[in-house]
Parts: sequence; C-alpha cells; structure tokens
Amino acid sequence: MVQGKKLWGGRFGAQTASSVESFTSSIEVDWRLYRHDIAGSIAHAKMLARQRIISAREGQKIVRGLELIQREIERGSFTFSPADEDIHMNIERRLIQKIGAAGEKLHTARSRNDQVALDMRLYLREEIQSILSLLDDLKLALARTAKRHLRVIMPGYTHLQKAQPVLLSHHLLAYVEMLDRDYERLVSCLERVNVLPLGSGALAGTTFPIDRAYVARLLHFPRISKNSIDAVSDRDFVIEFLSCSSILFVHFSRLAEELILWSSEEFGFVELPDAYCTGSSMMPQKKNPDVPELVRGKAGRLFGHLQALLTVMKGLPLAYNRDLQEDKFPLFDTVDTVKPCLGMIRELVRQMKVRETKMIAAAKDGFMNATDLADYLVERGVSFRAAHALVGKLVRYCVDQGRKIEELSLKELRRFSSKIDKDVYRYLTPQAGVQRRLAAGGTALVNVRRRLRELGV
Amino acid sequence: MVQGKKLWGGRFGAQTASSVESFTSSIEVDWRLYRHDIAGSIAHAKMLARQRIISAREGQKIVRGLELIQREIERGSFTFSPADEDIHMNIERRLIQKIGAAGEKLHTARSRNDQVALDMRLYLREEIQSILSLLDDLKLALARTAKRHLRVIMPGYTHLQKAQPVLLSHHLLAYVEMLDRDYERLVSCLERVNVLPLGSGALAGTTFPIDRAYVARLLHFPRISKNSIDAVSDRDFVIEFLSCSSILFVHFSRLAEELILWSSEEFGFVELPDAYCTGSSMMPQKKNPDVPELVRGKAGRLFGHLQALLTVMKGLPLAYNRDLQEDKFPLFDTVDTVKPCLGMIRELVRQMKVRETKMIAAAKDGFMNATDLADYLVERGVSFRAAHALVGKLVRYCVDQGRKIEELSLKELRRFSSKIDKDVYRYLTPQAGVQRRLAAGGTALVNVRRRLRELGV
Amino acid sequence: MVQGKKLWGGRFGAQTASSVESFTSSIEVDWRLYRHDIAGSIAHAKMLARQRIISAREGQKIVRGLELIQREIERGSFTFSPADEDIHMNIERRLIQKIGAAGEKLHTARSRNDQVALDMRLYLREEIQSILSLLDDLKLALARTAKRHLRVIMPGYTHLQKAQPVLLSHHLLAYVEMLDRDYERLVSCLERVNVLPLGSGALAGTTFPIDRAYVARLLHFPRISKNSIDAVSDRDFVIEFLSCSSILFVHFSRLAEELILWSSEEFGFVELPDAYCTGSSMMPQKKNPDVPELVRGKAGRLFGHLQALLTVMKGLPLAYNRDLQEDKFPLFDTVDTVKPCLGMIRELVRQMKVRETKMIAAAKDGFMNATDLADYLVERGVSFRAAHALVGKLVRYCVDQGRKIEELSLKELRRFSSKIDKDVYRYLTPQAGVQRRLAAGGTALVNVRRRLRELGV
Amino acid sequence: MVQGKKLWGGRFGAQTASSVESFTSSIEVDWRLYRHDIAGSIAHAKMLARQRIISAREGQKIVRGLELIQREIERGSFTFSPADEDIHMNIERRLIQKIGAAGEKLHTARSRNDQVALDMRLYLREEIQSILSLLDDLKLALARTAKRHLRVIMPGYTHLQKAQPVLLSHHLLAYVEMLDRDYERLVSCLERVNVLPLGSGALAGTTFPIDRAYVARLLHFPRISKNSIDAVSDRDFVIEFLSCSSILFVHFSRLAEELILWSSEEFGFVELPDAYCTGSSMMPQKKNPDVPELVRGKAGRLFGHLQALLTVMKGLPLAYNRDLQEDKFPLFDTVDTVKPCLGMIRELVRQMKVRETKMIAAAKDGFMNATDLADYLVERGVSFRAAHALVGKLVRYCVDQGRKIEELSLKELRRFSSKIDKDVYRYLTPQAGVQRRLAAGGTALVNVRRRLRELGV
Repeated sequence: MVQGKKLWGGRFGAQTASSVESFTSSIEVDWRLYRHDIAGSIAHAKMLARQRIISAREGQKIVRGLELIQREIERGSFTFSPADEDIHMNIERRLIQKIGAAGEKLHTARSRNDQVALDMRLYLREEIQSILSLLDDLKLALARTAKRHLRVIMPGYTHLQKAQPVLLSHHLLAYVEMLDRDYERLVSCLERVNVLPLGSGALAGTTFPIDRAYVARLLHFPRISKNSIDAVSDRDFVIEFLSCSSILFVHFSRLAEELILWSSEEFGFVELPDAYCTGSSMMPQKKNPDVPELVRGKAGRLFGHLQALLTVMKGLPLAYNRDLQEDKFPLFDTVDTVKPCLGMIRELVRQMKVRETKMIAAAKDGFMNATDLADYLVERGVSFRAAHALVGKLVRYCVDQGRKIEELSLKELRRFSSKIDKDVYRYLTPQAGVQRRLAAGGTALVNVRRRLRELGV
Repeated sequence: MVQGKKLWGGRFGAQTASSVESFTSSIEVDWRLYRHDIAGSIAHAKMLARQRIISAREGQKIVRGLELIQREIERGSFTFSPADEDIHMNIERRLIQKIGAAGEKLHTARSRNDQVALDMRLYLREEIQSILSLLDDLKLALARTAKRHLRVIMPGYTHLQKAQPVLLSHHLLAYVEMLDRDYERLVSCLERVNVLPLGSGALAGTTFPIDRAYVARLLHFPRISKNSIDAVSDRDFVIEFLSCSSILFVHFSRLAEELILWSSEEFGFVELPDAYCTGSSMMPQKKNPDVPELVRGKAGRLFGHLQALLTVMKGLPLAYNRDLQEDKFPLFDTVDTVKPCLGMIRELVRQMKVRETKMIAAAKDGFMNATDLADYLVERGVSFRAAHALVGKLVRYCVDQGRKIEELSLKELRRFSSKIDKDVYRYLTPQAGVQRRLAAGGTALVNVRRRLRELGV
Repeated sequence: MVQGKKLWGGRFGAQTASSVESFTSSIEVDWRLYRHDIAGSIAHAKMLARQRIISAREGQKIVRGLELIQREIERGSFTFSPADEDIHMNIERRLIQKIGAAGEKLHTARSRNDQVALDMRLYLREEIQSILSLLDDLKLALARTAKRHLRVIMPGYTHLQKAQPVLLSHHLLAYVEMLDRDYERLVSCLERVNVLPLGSGALAGTTFPIDRAYVARLLHFPRISKNSIDAVSDRDFVIEFLSCSSILFVHFSRLAEELILWSSEEFGFVELPDAYCTGSSMMPQKKNPDVPELVRGKAGRLFGHLQALLTVMKGLPLAYNRDLQEDKFPLFDTVDTVKPCLGMIRELVRQMKVRETKMIAAAKDGFMNATDLADYLVERGVSFRAAHALVGKLVRYCVDQGRKIEELSLKELRRFSSKIDKDVYRYLTPQAGVQRRLAAGGTALVNVRRRLRELGV
Repeated sequence: MVQGKKLWGGRFGAQTASSVESFTSSIEVDWRLYRHDIAGSIAHAKMLARQRIISAREGQKIVRGLELIQREIERGSFTFSPADEDIHMNIERRLIQKIGAAGEKLHTARSRNDQVALDMRLYLREEIQSILSLLDDLKLALARTAKRHLRVIMPGYTHLQKAQPVLLSHHLLAYVEMLDRDYERLVSCLERVNVLPLGSGALAGTTFPIDRAYVARLLHFPRISKNSIDAVSDRDFVIEFLSCSSILFVHFSRLAEELILWSSEEFGFVELPDAYCTGSSMMPQKKNPDVPELVRGKAGRLFGHLQALLTVMKGLPLAYNRDLQEDKFPLFDTVDTVKPCLGMIRELVRQMKVRETKMIAAAKDGFMNATDLADYLVERGVSFRAAHALVGKLVRYCVDQGRKIEELSLKELRRFSSKIDKDVYRYLTPQAGVQRRLAAGGTALVNVRRRLRELGV
C-alpha cells in the first residue's frame, strides 16, 4: 500500500488537498482515544477469530500488533499523521505496516462510524467513573470542614441580605446535597453511556456473522445498542454528560462566588490559603482569589460547550454526518475542565481558614431574629400575618433609632404587642434562632449531626 | 388589612412604585400554578392543625376557603392583581378576605421560598407524567407506521449520500431508540423533581413543630429535602428538565428535517397530509411542510431556554435570590412547546403517505451494493482493505461509464478480481443487502420484527 | 369568499386541522405588528396605483379601508382569528370583507415573505429609536448622580479585593462608557435594519412594474435590498439586535450586581429606595433588592433568545423557511425586557441614597495605598519591580501586626527602604491616591470633570 | 531575583501550589500574543523614556532587549514557563534576566490589567483585518462563479419546496449580500476594538506623568479609552467579534447545507471536487462532502463560544476579575475556525462543478410557473386573490392528472378562466419567469449583471 494514498482512496480520481487534510483531520484531538481504540480493536479481532471470520493466527497477530502499537504510543515513538485523518486510521495503517495482510483484515465487519462511537463510550465511561470518585472526595472535604466548624453560627442570606442565622456546617452541607444530585445524574447518564455500539457497521449492520454479545462481555458493556442507524448517529450520551457537567458548574460557580464574597474584606468570613491565591503585577498588597474566579468563569465555558453540541446535532438527517466530529472538542475540554476544578475546589474547602469570630459577630446584625419574634408571637396566639406586620413596624422603629431588637427595653417592645414578655430575650439570640429550627432539614445542630453521620464523617 | 398594603409591608416607609409592581410581578406567568399552590396549602394547613400549630377549626376553614378559591379561579371569577405580585400572595390575600383571621395563619411555618419550590415541583411532576404518556403514544405511532411498511426498502444515508439500503421500518425504529432514551432520562429526572421542599422556610427551616413526613404523604412525595438552604435555592430539577427537553428536540429536529427532505420533490419519499401543510400567499401551487419546519425551529427556542436558566443560576450566592423568578418563563414555555410538538409529530408519523415505489427505486442507485461486493470478496479470502480498494476502483470505472455495478458483465467484473463469480449478482440486490445484515441491531427483517414485538406492535 | 377557507387554499384537498391552525398560527405574538403592517400596505397600495397596476380608485379604497381597520384594532373592535394565521392575513381578510374586490388586489406583486420582513424592520427601527432615547436618559442619570457625589472617594476593586481608591463619580462614569458603546452598536445595527425588503416577492422578485424607490421614500428607508432571495431569508438584523441587547445586559447585570453588593449590610455603600425593593413573606425585617436581582436574572433570558435565533437560522437552505417564524418571540420578548429595565436601572441610579461616609471609611482600609508607596519609591530611583517587592514585604509586616501602612513610624518604614522620607505620609491618603492619577482616563477629579462636561452635565 | 519567586510575591507567606500554577496559568494559550505584547512594551518604554520617567539609556536597553526576546521566541529558543503564569510575565522575567535593573523598570506606570487589554486589542485588530481580506476573496469567488454560470436557471425554493425559477447567479449573489453585511459589521466592530487602553493601570490610572496620546500614535490607535475602570474590565470588543463571527457562520452553515443538498444524488446540482471530499472506511463507493459538513458543524462551536463569554461576563462587579482570562480561549479558537473556513468555502465555491442541465431540468418541474399564470391573469384584470385561488385549483387538477400546467391544452386552461389566451404559453417557461422579474433586486438577468458590475466582476 502506497504511503499517501488514503485507505478509502480507491474510488477517488484526485488526492485530497493538503489544506483539506489539515482542515478535516481530527488527530490532534482524538489521539487521546488510542487506548480505547486499541482495546476496542482487540476485542473486535478476538471476536472475528472466534467466529472464524478471520483465522485464529490472524487474530493473534492483530492483537499482538495492536499491543505493540500501544507501547509505541506510550513510549512516544509513534508518529501521528494528519494525512491519516484520525486515531483510527493512524493505528490501522501502522498495524498494516507492522503485520502486513492480517492487518488489512481488522476492519472486516466494522466501520469507523461504529468504531468511533465505541471509542467515545469507552473513554467517557472511564472519565465519568473518575469524576464520580472525585465528587466523593469533594463531598467528604465539605463534610469534614463542616464538622471542624460544627457549631459556628453565620448569617444566612437571601437576596444577599441577612435573613436568619444558620450554622456554617449546615450551609456547607447544602453543597453536599447539590453534589449528591450531580452524582445521581452522572450515574444515570453512565447507564446510557455504557452501551456497546460496535457491530452497527456504517449504519445498516454487517453481513458477517459477528457475535456482539461476546464483544460486550470482553469490553464489560451491560447493554448492546438495538438499532444500527441510531447507534452510529447518536451523541445523546455526550450531550447528557455535558449537561450534567454544566449543572455541576452551576454549583461550583455558586460556591466560588461565596468564597470570593467571603474572602472580601467586607465579609471577611474566610481566608484562602496563600498557595491558592495570586498577586498583582502592579499593586503590592493584593492577594486575589484567582482560583475560585477561574472556576466561576469556567462555568461559562462549559455552558458554551453544551450549547455547541446541541446546535451541532440539531436538524441533522440520519445517520452519521461529519458534523459529529465536532463532538470531540467540547467533550474533551469539558472533562479537562471538570477534573482539575473538582480538585481545586476540594483543596479550597479543605484549606480555607474560617474566621469564626467574624462570622458569629456578623450573625448578630441585620435583625435576623425578626422571624423568631414573629414566631414567638404566633406561639402566643397572634396570627402569623398580624405578627409579621407588627414585627415589621418594630424593625422600622429600630432602623430609625439605630438599635437592635434585643436592645429595646421590654416596655418599648410591649408598645408593639402586649403579648411580649420578658422571656422574649431568650428567643432573640442567634443561638436560639439556630437551635429552635429543629424540623427535618432545618439548621439545628441535631439535624446537621445526623446528616454528617449519614455521610460517614 | 388595607387593600394596597403589601402583606410584607410592615417594615417599609414608602409604597412600592407601580412601575416596580408591574416589573417584579410574576402573576401573569405563575397564575397557572394555582392548583398546585392550593393543593400545597391544603396539605400544609392540615399538617398545621394535626400538629396543633393552628386549631382544627382554623384548619378546616382554611381548607374550605382554599377549595372555594380554586372554584373561583376555575370559573373565572377570581381577580388576579399584580399588586399582590404572585399567585401565592393573590391566593393568600383572597383567603384572608374570605375567612378572616384564620387565613392569616396559613403562612405560619412557611415562606414563599419553600412554597414556590413546592408548587414548581408539583407542577413539573404532573407535566413530566403527561409528557411520558405522550412519548409512549409517539413511540407507538412510529412502531405502527414501521409495521405498516415493514418490508419497504429505502436508501440509508450517511453524509446525505446514499450509503446502504435499509428498511424504512428499521429507519423509523431508530427514532424509537432515541425516544426510549428520552423516556429514561425523564424518568430519572422525575426522581429528583419528586422531593418535598416544604418545611424549609425562608432558608433555615422553621421553629414550629411541623411534620414534613405527613405533608409528603399527603402530596405523594417519596423523598423529603435534607437541607433547608439547598431546598430553597435549588433549581437543578428545572434545568435538568430543560436539558431533557433539549435533547428530545435534537431528535424532533432530526425527524423534522427528514420529513422536510423526504417531502421535497427531489426525494419524494413521503407526502404529508394536506391538513398538516399550509400554502403560500403568493404562489398558488405551494404546499409547504410548515409543521415540521416549526418543530425544527422550536429546537432553537428550547436550547435558548436551557441556556437562559443555566446563566441565571450561575454564580448566585446562597440561598434564594430573586433572579430565580426567571425560572418560570423558560419552564412554562418549554412545557407548552414540548406537548403540542409531541402531538404534531405523532400525527405526521401516523398520517404521512409513504411512496414505497419511489423509495425502492431510489434504493437501487448510488452504488449502495459496493460494501456487499467488498464483503463478498472478503468471504472469498481477500483482505477487507484490499477488497475495499478494489471495489473503490470498480465504482470509479462505473461512474466514468455511467453504469451500475450490477450492470457490468461478469467478464468486466473479473477484470477487477478473479474471485468474482457469477453468483455475485445475487449479492448485489438491495433485498440481499438488507437481508444479509442479520447481526443484532442490523437492518435485516428478522431484527426489525423482533424489535416490533418487544414494542408490542 | 367563504369564511374558513384559507386565502391560499385553492390547491388543497383537505382543510387544515384545527390543532395545526393553533400550532402554526402566530397571531398571538405578531398582532403587535398591525401598525407596521398597515403602514407598509398603504405604501404598497399607493405605489401600485401610481404604477397603474391597480386603479387610482382601488388604491384609495384600499388606503381608506386600511385606515379604518387600524382604528378598529386600536378601539379593540377587531376580531383576530387564528384560522387566519397571522396579522397579515387577518388584516387582508378584513379588508376584503370591508371593501370587496379592490381588497383582493392588495396582495398583487407582494408575498407574505417580503411583507413580514418589511413589518419586522419597521417595528424594530421604531423600537431601536426608542431604546436609543432611553439609553440617553440612563447615561444622563448616571452622569448626574456622578456629579451629585463628585468628590466621594470609595474603594476601587479588582477580584472583589480592595485595590486602589477611586472616585465614585469615576466608577459611575465607567458605565457611561459601556452605554456609549451600546449606543454606537445599536446605531450601527439600525443601518442594517433600515433597508426596504418589499418588492422581493416570495423569493424571486415580481413580474409587475413596481417602483421600490417610491415605496422606500414613503416609508423613509434610505436603502433598498439588492437581492430578492436574500431579502426574504435574512434575519441578520434581528440577531444583531439580540446581540446588542445581550451585550447591554452584560453591562446591566454588572451594575445590578454592584447595586446588590453595595446595598448588602457588609458593603453598606448605598440604600435603595423603598419603592424599588420588596419584603419577605416570612421574615419581617427584610428589604430585598429585587429590582436589580431581576435585571441581573434577565441577562440569562436575553442570552437565551440570542442563542435561540442563531440556532433557528443555522443550516437553513435558502430562501424562506417556516422556522423563521421563531424569530418573533425572541425579538418581541427582548424588546419588552430591554425597555422596562432601562427605566428601572435609571430610577435606581437616580434614587439610590449614597452613604458617603461609609464609602470614604472603606477607602482607608485594605492597604490601597501600597501602589502609591511603590510609585513614591520609583520616583526616588528604585526600579518598579524592586519597589513592588519591597512594599509587598512591608504589607506582610503590616498584616502580621494588624496595622495600616500609614500607621507605621518613619523608622519602621525606613527599615524597608532608606529612600522613604517623612513626606511619604502625604502620599498615603486616599485623597492623594485619587488626585495624583492625572493621566488621561485616570480617576483624578480633573478627568472626571472633563468627562462630565463632555456629557453636558 | 530568585527564580521561582513570583514577580508579585513580596506580600505572600507561602508559595503557589504547583497544581494551582498549572490551573491558573494561561501561557499555553496566550503565548501567541508575544508579538503584540512586545510591540506594546516597546511603545510603553519609548514613552516612559520620552517622559523622563526612565532614562533614555534605560529605554534603549529595554527596546533592544525586547527585540532580542522576539527573535528568541521566533527562533524557538525561548523557554515558556507556566510558573510565570502568562506571556506578559514570561517576557518581563526574561527581559530582567537579559538586561538587569533596567528591565525591572518596564512595568512602571503599567499593570497587567491594561497590558493584556492592549495585547488583545492589537491581536484582534490584526486578525479582523485579515478576515476582512478573506471575506473579499470569498465574495469575489462567489461573484466569479455566478458570472461563469450567468444564465443557468435553477429552481428557487421556499420551505425546500420548489417555488419559482431563479438564476443560479442570482442565488449565489444572495450570499454576497450576506457577506457584505458581515463585512460592514466587522468594520463597525473594528472601530470599538481600535481603542488604546494602556495607561489605565490596574483600574484607577497611574500617578506617573505618562503620555497616552504618544503611545496611541506609536501603535496607530485612533482612539484612547476614556475611563480607566472601564478600560480594564471591558471585553465588549471580544463579545462583539464573537457575535459577528456567529452571524457569519449562520451564513456559512446555510451555504454548507446547500452544498450538501446540491451534491446529494437526489438534487445532483453540483459535484464537489474530489480533493475536498473524503471516503468511507467501510463503503468503497462513498464520496462525502466532509468539508461543508464540518463548516456547518463548526457553527455550533462558534455559537457556543459566544454564549460562553457572555456568561463569563454576566454579573461581574467592576473592575478586573480573573474570570476574564476565560476570554482568550473562545477568541483564539474563533479566529482559528473562521479563517480556514473562509478559505475552504472559497475553494468549494470556486471549484465545484455545476451540473447545468440537471438544474435547468429541475426548474421545469414543481408548477413553478403558477405565480406567473396568476400574474398573467391579474394583468388581464382578475384580482390577485381571485387569480391565486383559480390557479390553485388548476394546479390541483394538474396534480391529479399528473401533468404540468403548460401541458394542458388552451381549452382545458380556459375551463379555469376565460381570460386565458394562447399567448399564455409564452409566460409559462422558466426563462420567461426569470426574465420578467425585472423589479430591482429580482432575478432577471439585467439585475444580476448590474450587481456583478458593482462587484467589479
């Protein structure tokens, strides 16, 4: 076989323009599929031999050749060529160079269309498993940091206005809930990734007596695709993973935002470790929360990838179209973004220094005991709406006077409602506010403790 | 209580500007949650009474009042007011008008933050269930149309170039696979929708001795949210639904594209029913496939909604922020788009007239038997790559001559390979091409039949 | 003409299904184009008469009929029918009802394809002009608020960390620069909106001797489209407007974010007017910055619309396709979002109460004079990198000691560099920091004043 | 200066974690700014010397040092280090290594914040200019191909249904109109790119007596940014470019779609050059339009980048935040996508083989003369609506009979309208249909010729 001639070149009168080769080539991005491509080819070759579509000897030669190629790639002695378009053709050509005619039989009963679908699924299956494990690490880091500061009270916010005091540990566990859902979603996505497409051929299946169940066993696929046309044109599994990653980054961007806010001088709730911050080229005093800022920014990047692939797929007639090659970049870049961010966020959560006294002091401002006062009145028979209105007026009075509710005398308080008694002051501390929120899911210590136990911390 | 005064107005010195009222009001979009809001409030009131937070009599008055309000809304005699901001406040104010002081107690141990999360989940749960049932209808329509044209052969395409002959029934079943995955995804999403948030209060839980498990039973929620801060600030369940819908519309847009292509004069594979087409204001002859075009276009709309909500949520600090109000429009509009499109697509699939002879004729062109000839040679000992190259040259010869492979004489064929024998012609018909693709998932009739049986058709 | 029969129904055997009517109808969204549709039709009719394609009398009847219909619509006595699909057909049918045969001539030399392109352009031209004027108002409000607090110093931030002191007025004028670019972009967009498409027919032009230049004069279009196929299939002008609006909302969301931060208790830089805030249903003390939160959230909505229309248009073959109907909703909703937000932001900027003393106090923290000290050393011969490093160490010393730079004694300061002299303290105040940044565009008062004069304030 | 110590490290107690270095580093993407960074630094150094902020000798040493570094980079002998974060710090450190203390003065009166804004603007200005020139080439290629097939008639489509005959040249010129608008938009965008930000410092300007106008002259900037805070936090110019590119790719994706359709067997209007197609690994006969498919797919990629950057910028408080680093990847990848696609599309347009006889034959089907017949009747006094209805019925009659309009006898025709005379047949040819569409912008030859002359072809 002449070098420079495409493996599919028989039908063509003119050679591919070299600008077209570099335009259509995907080898710069898909070389990373080499392990999965080789694993898939080995399983395919074993099956071909078992089904006597090729001889046992040919099968062995192919398997051995592919193993050698894998070592070449890992040693760095393999030369990738854009003229061979993609990882599949690069490996196949090298195989033919190495083992001759037997290599020319590897592609029997197979098309690049089902081959690339297989490689993508093998790759993504592995990456999702690794992300799941990183997610577990991050959940653990959150739970441990929560436990370390178990009783620290901080202001809870809505609309970035102080709302009600909460435990920092409860606040951190909110992120564990989000990550739990991310985990669930990825596990569910994995089910749809974990389906064997090989054997679908170009689009119609194959005329050879292949055994797809055997290939599935070799490659540990619990399911086999049921329709060849669908199998080669489907990229749902990639989109779904991009969607899971985007939602994960909604969570990351929210946590990043809070770390940025909290490490501002104005909030001053945490100090990020020096090793996770950078300085300014001009301003000598600066210590900037670059890591959470980048994480927050990368949310945009991932949403863009999701949008990109949805748009790529929109309105394509069946079956395979070359547009599908544009699935690789968003997928690979998403994986390459998700994994380091998981690690970065975990270390920030682990290593951030919580300024407990600042948090507790902040929890005393902002009339965050107003709801407790309203609840106090309700317990004494006032309707909630009436109590709410009455406490609203009382707060306005405090704002005008520049005082806190608990600073008012009983006499002043009773001007607003005669139901108020001197025991009221016990209800107005942040501690009371936290401790009385006992209903399931509320911020009371007992709830947080139960959840930490569930998380094994 | 004075009309015009906000239910939360106690603390305020100045009234809301009326332009602000109309800017912040969501009643024009969220009125549709009235049934869910009332159902949630009834469950809440029953629980409050059971827990003796309000009296049994108050509980009954509230329940009865809410039932009357539901009837008012359904009769059209309820006046919605933007001054009351949203459906929750509109109903609460009306309740107070109707039943007085007891009504002022409904909001005990509750915030709009957990209330709206509840309403959205009740609403979406119902809508997903209805979408699942519409999905089943559509799958059935596809399967039945497949069965009706069970043996019709058409060209299978890759890159919109003729590739290999396939059964139309096999092609239609490819969409059933896609819809199966959509179904799976929605069922998985539903698990995360189906979680009770009520009882989370504004963000920290509540000081009242509520019984969330009881409310969950009343409202048929299998799970209860575990963290109050997360529960009021989470909109994952909406994003996930929008993502499922976007992927569904990837499939719809592909099917729509094919219906548009197939009903063009050039393809001529199907005729859409007159009742599903429209004409031109200028050109008297036109019959346009407007319905699939609109479905295809609406894919963009749904992708936009997904992007919108991801962006809304990005970087928001915990817990509730008013930005979250922007979840409603994309959600409601997505539901309002998905459901009619499911119906429209179903009817198109059901009623389209398949031009079988056109399809079969088209299946004879395009050298779609080239792979079969290569496979033939492989079976006679030629390596696949050599067979591929050789058939490639043969096709080029045919193109130059303006002839089909099966039109060449045996002598001509043997010029390309001496392995070719006169039995070759039996391998070159579209029928043979289809029938020999027997491997699981391939287009052979036996596979299609098995799948139809699985689908109960 | 029989009611219920489509104006294009001649060629059809079956009537449109009523579910299809409601699915394809756009009258619920495009009725708002009625004024532009009528204005366009009047111009068209006048031209037809002038060119003797219809008689002068017919032309007059049509014009009068259309004027009456406009009044009907504005009085609310016009009945829109989904069976007539869109605003164009609704008006044409009513015209025929009113004036008979002459009405049947209005559509001579015209198609809905060029008609709807015309209506959209007339509509958008008008709306852009109105947005430009609202932009001017907002710029003025920013400039006036800047002037009102001309000399107030606040901390300038990078990475949400205090960086260098700046004038609040300078900070506010940063937004004027952004809005200036928005203005420029919209003016540039308007040039491409302001092109007459009418006369392009369905896609190929028309066989009638029409005079497009005359129509352009009547409707004040400076340009006429040059290619009929492009004119009916182009929606660039809508996408470009959506893009301009998205960039505008990047700016709005940034300003909104700052208003939210600034009105938090932690920053405390501004107080938003009560009339622009809302309260909580549960927490009596809350005063929430709902308006800027909603503005920030609506950025997501607009980005989604932009994405939607890009996706709708992607990959459509020429010329008109029904997918294009999906341009209306994103366009109309964008206009309906941009205009009120412009007003809301303007009022917030106008009415917010600046807490000058809080700002100035905050400007004294955070070692924001560190750069000034480095610059001081550079002026005394130290290289900038050396000065930066040395001040960095000095700041670390201060952090450890819990003191500010200006609180160190001269002796302590000189431990870091002997170049420091007692005049240094004059360089370390926020005032000096601001006043010495005289280079063009810097925060010094003289620069701000010059810019305000340019803005006519 | 110790290697390994950050240039901003003075204030820090702990060194940056190496995982953080690689996470925050941008050198892998921003190294490509080296020319612009050096050009900007040279201008800055010249200005510093001219203003006596550094000595003339120091200025010369810096300039010479930077020129040497540029040569090192271009020779490949420069070692980029992620520890130095970005291209700016890599170059500055190398400069200090080479020329010592003078190098430590380069960053006087400058921050990376204004430096990176400058580099991005210099880079983008250059790239836009190169894109504009490629756009001109493509317009020319379209015009020349149009001229080559000046009189070829093809079917014009709406809804992918045959509508009216048009000239292929007219159809190709529709794309010239789109590209004209793309050109206009990019020129307008360039005005906002072409603004000097240097001199804005970190955010507040600088205390040194710099001369920004002089730097602007050296670097050929017609405008200088007016507000330092805006100048360092603005990325509008990048978003606007991404938006222009997205709209450009709407056009590319439409043209790509048409090339794919046209080169299908069903349409058969063009044959793409072998050198721009690729084959199948499995199917020997395939010749696939990969290049237009990839171009179409890349539209999704670019839309994603636009969305990504909008989302990154949303809601960021002023001024610079590290999130802004996420502008580089979408910008660079967009440039790297736009330029080769412009070349690929140009070559496809230039080299595609038009099958004129196929086009002309196709132009005779589909009742595309129905509008002409209606117009014919209008000219004979029938109202357009009546004519439309009547021709609609006539078409239905033809459909039922399987005949074309021009195949009906005069007698048959007159059954539908007595106004029809024997001259009617002259009006029913595609040639007449094209030639009579003389109104400005219509498909008549005279219009196409005029436009080609305008385009200089």
